[in-house]
Amino acid sequence: MKNLKLTALSETHRRTVILVGDIRIGEDFVVIAGPCAVESESQTIKTALAVKAAGGNMLRGGAFKPRTSPYAFQGLGLKGLKILEKAKKETGLPVVTEVLDSRDVSWICEYIDVLQIGARNMQNFSLLKEVGKSNKPVLLKRGMYSTLEEWLNCAEYILSEGNPNVILCERGIRTFETYTRNTLDLSIVPSVKETTHLPIFVDPSHGTGKLSLIEPMSLAAVAAGADGLVIEVHINPAEAMSDKDQQLTPEMFQSLMAKVEKVRSCLAEL
Amino acid sequence: MKNLKLTALSETHRRTVILVGDIRIGEDFVVIAGPCAVESESQTIKTALAVKAAGGNMLRGGAFKPRTSPYAFQGLGLKGLKILEKAKKETGLPVVTEVLDSRDVSWICEYIDVLQIGARNMQNFSLLKEVGKSNKPVLLKRGMYSTLEEWLNCAEYILSEGNPNVILCERGIRTFETYTRNTLDLSIVPSVKETTHLPIFVDPSHGTGKLSLIEPMSLAAVAAGADGLVIEVHINPAEAMSDKDQQLTPEMFQSLMAKVEKVRSCLAEL
Amino acid sequence: MKNLKLTALSETHRRTVILVGDIRIGEDFVVIAGPCAVESESQTIKTALAVKAAGGNMLRGGAFKPRTSPYAFQGLGLKGLKILEKAKKETGLPVVTEVLDSRDVSWICEYIDVLQIGARNMQNFSLLKEVGKSNKPVLLKRGMYSTLEEWLNCAEYILSEGNPNVILCERGIRTFETYTRNTLDLSIVPSVKETTHLPIFVDPSHGTGKLSLIEPMSLAAVAAGADGLVIEVHINPAEAMSDKDQQLTPEMFQSLMAKVEKVRSCLAEL
Amino acid sequence: MKNLKLTALSETHRRTVILVGDIRIGEDFVVIAGPCAVESESQTIKTALAVKAAGGNMLRGGAFKPRTSPYAFQGLGLKGLKILEKAKKETGLPVVTEVLDSRDVSWICEYIDVLQIGARNMQNFSLLKEVGKSNKPVLLKRGMYSTLEEWLNCAEYILSEGNPNVILCERGIRTFETYTRNTLDLSIVPSVKETTHLPIFVDPSHGTGKLSLIEPMSLAAVAAGADGLVIEVHINPAEAMSDKDQQLTPEMFQSLMAKVEKVRSCLAEL
Repeated sequence: MKNLKLTALSETHRRTVILVGDIRIGEDFVVIAGPCAVESESQTIKTALAVKAAGGNMLRGGAFKPRTSPYAFQGLGLKGLKILEKAKKETGLPVVTEVLDSRDVSWICEYIDVLQIGARNMQNFSLLKEVGKSNKPVLLKRGMYSTLEEWLNCAEYILSEGNPNVILCERGIRTFETYTRNTLDLSIVPSVKETTHLPIFVDPSHGTGKLSLIEPMSLAAVAAGADGLVIEVHINPAEAMSDKDQQLTPEMFQSLMAKVEKVRSCLAEL
Repeated sequence: MKNLKLTALSETHRRTVILVGDIRIGEDFVVIAGPCAVESESQTIKTALAVKAAGGNMLRGGAFKPRTSPYAFQGLGLKGLKILEKAKKETGLPVVTEVLDSRDVSWICEYIDVLQIGARNMQNFSLLKEVGKSNKPVLLKRGMYSTLEEWLNCAEYILSEGNPNVILCERGIRTFETYTRNTLDLSIVPSVKETTHLPIFVDPSHGTGKLSLIEPMSLAAVAAGADGLVIEVHINPAEAMSDKDQQLTPEMFQSLMAKVEKVRSCLAEL
Repeated sequence: MKNLKLTALSETHRRTVILVGDIRIGEDFVVIAGPCAVESESQTIKTALAVKAAGGNMLRGGAFKPRTSPYAFQGLGLKGLKILEKAKKETGLPVVTEVLDSRDVSWICEYIDVLQIGARNMQNFSLLKEVGKSNKPVLLKRGMYSTLEEWLNCAEYILSEGNPNVILCERGIRTFETYTRNTLDLSIVPSVKETTHLPIFVDPSHGTGKLSLIEPMSLAAVAAGADGLVIEVHINPAEAMSDKDQQLTPEMFQSLMAKVEKVRSCLAEL
Repeated sequence: MKNLKLTALSETHRRTVILVGDIRIGEDFVVIAGPCAVESESQTIKTALAVKAAGGNMLRGGAFKPRTSPYAFQGLGLKGLKILEKAKKETGLPVVTEVLDSRDVSWICEYIDVLQIGARNMQNFSLLKEVGKSNKPVLLKRGMYSTLEEWLNCAEYILSEGNPNVILCERGIRTFETYTRNTLDLSIVPSVKETTHLPIFVDPSHGTGKLSLIEPMSLAAVAAGADGLVIEVHINPAEAMSDKDQQLTPEMFQSLMAKVEKVRSCLAEL
């Protein structure tokens, strides 16, 4: 990292704090939760209410889905964004959604609070430049094959266009292990902390792809120093149109939130 | 691959042949060569003439460069495309160039013969759909973390939009090995041949990142059954603005072409 | 894992508890600490006293070192074992040491309490069978390329010879990331817990290879549910003969132990 | 590789030639073929005769099998060695067999011509030292997670004990790709050639794990500059006790040998 001259690395003494409504990302511990995909108004709003009730801070939900196959459900698009807007009105939760195409950035910003760049688009440099020109915070997921240095260079593509509000999010890398969907690399959390001033989140839902591992890995992420979590929650996972096996029920999410809170308060005393 | 229902897999008895001028990709053995980036008219045309003289069939050259860092040379853009157009006029070689942004597809098509999707954009599904709507053949590089199945699904994104002319290109995957820049996976060549009807090329320049390995790996690719090669050649590699260490001189390229031809004719007799 | 018929998997309701002196591995939380290599009596005993003072439960130290190069320090051998024996007398700490050769198992058992199989020998099946015939507990490190299923099969090699006392230990897998020495896979902790009855430890020293990451990853391992930690501590890391950059000073270890204890007690309340 | 001081690297002008009977490994192109495991006298001798008839130069066959599971067939042991000895008498083919335990090296040497160190034991340093003390050539397979530098250091463990006769053998590394059993890294062939004076073989049977890929990858290995091949052949693959899906029939092997010969003679003219 010695030859890396990045805005992301330069202000070593002050950590970035990103304001979303009255949430202070990088300072407050923040949980972003919600369904993999926006499937219907009812599904989204019910899930949002459950997220809110359990103490979640922001709502996530995909309107544009980057699916491996062109024949899989691709998301509701504009209709999905309007549903997210309603869910925000109902709950007060700011919303995060993924953007896939540089042409969509400006108008998507009308509906949402935080733009997400997915793992598959981490090095879609046109898209990075475009969100760098927007006035919305960007949740930048780590590519599944990305080194820390490459990831920080992608953050720099956004920062160098004038948008200082980048949130990094570890979501699992690709290895030979097949028991989990990806290998969640929690050591990236303190590594990001010691090399940059940007907030770092962890997504144990995609990072493990296994319902039973989400809670322990959430607690581990907190202990490793993460600034927040991104968790998939669905009002009825069995009927989900994607990621059936890794979306928590509201009850599981509530239990998770209680434990996360407990570990956080304990760590705050260290 | 059993659950994969792809257009790419369906016509098992007939292999795809793609016409570019009078070149029959998938039937003729085709070598695409040229500089990493279009840097100037002189550099590009001199290189193109050398490629032509050595028996290369098509010219490659980047006008839009997907660089790891936002501060690295990003390519000449439109000016680069115009230089490629001139190089084509001078040499008669059809040109291949990479497209990075879905907004650029239609106008780039005015200048070039084959669109390239780079490894970093393999799962940029918006871009795949857009080139799928164009009338140009698409050279689809394998992502550095991509399984065969994921790659074929990306080809399917293009095919399913109505563009049947997809050329797959192996360019090395990411592993733990550090001696080479990437690990060139030649077993993907017969694997692609036995699962699809699409042509498969190999790029040993990016695949190894090492000058000394390009020739042996080119010959190995031919022996493995590749339909063509993509080779970086620069009129003066020492002064190249990118990929200094993996661009062949015209002399090296000429020597390589003679050996490739020899191995090909020998294999044709098997 | 469906076709796996392992002793390691069979008794799903009762977790293995391994007695070492009055330590109950699998029930008590256990910290094994000490130098990478036994270098001298003074270095080892001073370190052992520091480990004991900070609350460490067992002493580790290599007498036989599996070094990448044949020209690197290979360990003190028998002399090292005798030093470990003295350190045990001085401190009361049971000792763990690595065995490299099936011929050495029986006589090494005269000096130590727990045999370690290192990552490079995880699939040295002769050695596994030999330690399976011994009456000492075995700390079996995960190979740097090993899936969960392969690792459990290696445990089974030991169990099937009649030795039920196997402790699994995650120590980082090999990936493309170069910022850390290995990628510590903490999701293996709950994965082991849900598939076997064996205790699972974590070694953040080898797992990260970076001094600054050992503390956060230790806390994360605790939060993920680990039964214990293996930590490299050296009385004077700057003069260590191996692993200079990942051995904690006694002061750092003391600070780590206090935080680990705090997180553990907090988790016990969940 | 700059800091590597290896005997393996030192004599840059003269390549190692290893005599086995009248075969000159490193100078002649050599094909080692035979069953995964020695299962019976009849199976082994029939296969050996077929290997001989097709032009194979040496016989391979496992008497000690390093199986993932302790409950899988572990090989015939001494009985297997005696069968290999008979097969040698019948055919005149020198035999290669794997050794798993340092205690077995000296007596196994009574029965065979070349000792094999398998991928799983590449860093079993005790075993490397032991075969380094023997007077037999050693076929050292690359570990499935091993960098070139680590592999050469393992060769050095053998060379530094006084045995100069090391044959390196690429057999596939572990990556995320699941279509093939391993990823055969052919770029290691010219990489070994340019950094050492040792012969380099390729094993496409384990390297791909897929019958249909063995022939194209054998030809590619030849074109990449390999000094020899290791191929699994079984008189009746359907009834093999291991590696059913990657052992060639005698007919397939004969066809392969004819093509290999053709490509070799063509390359000799380059």
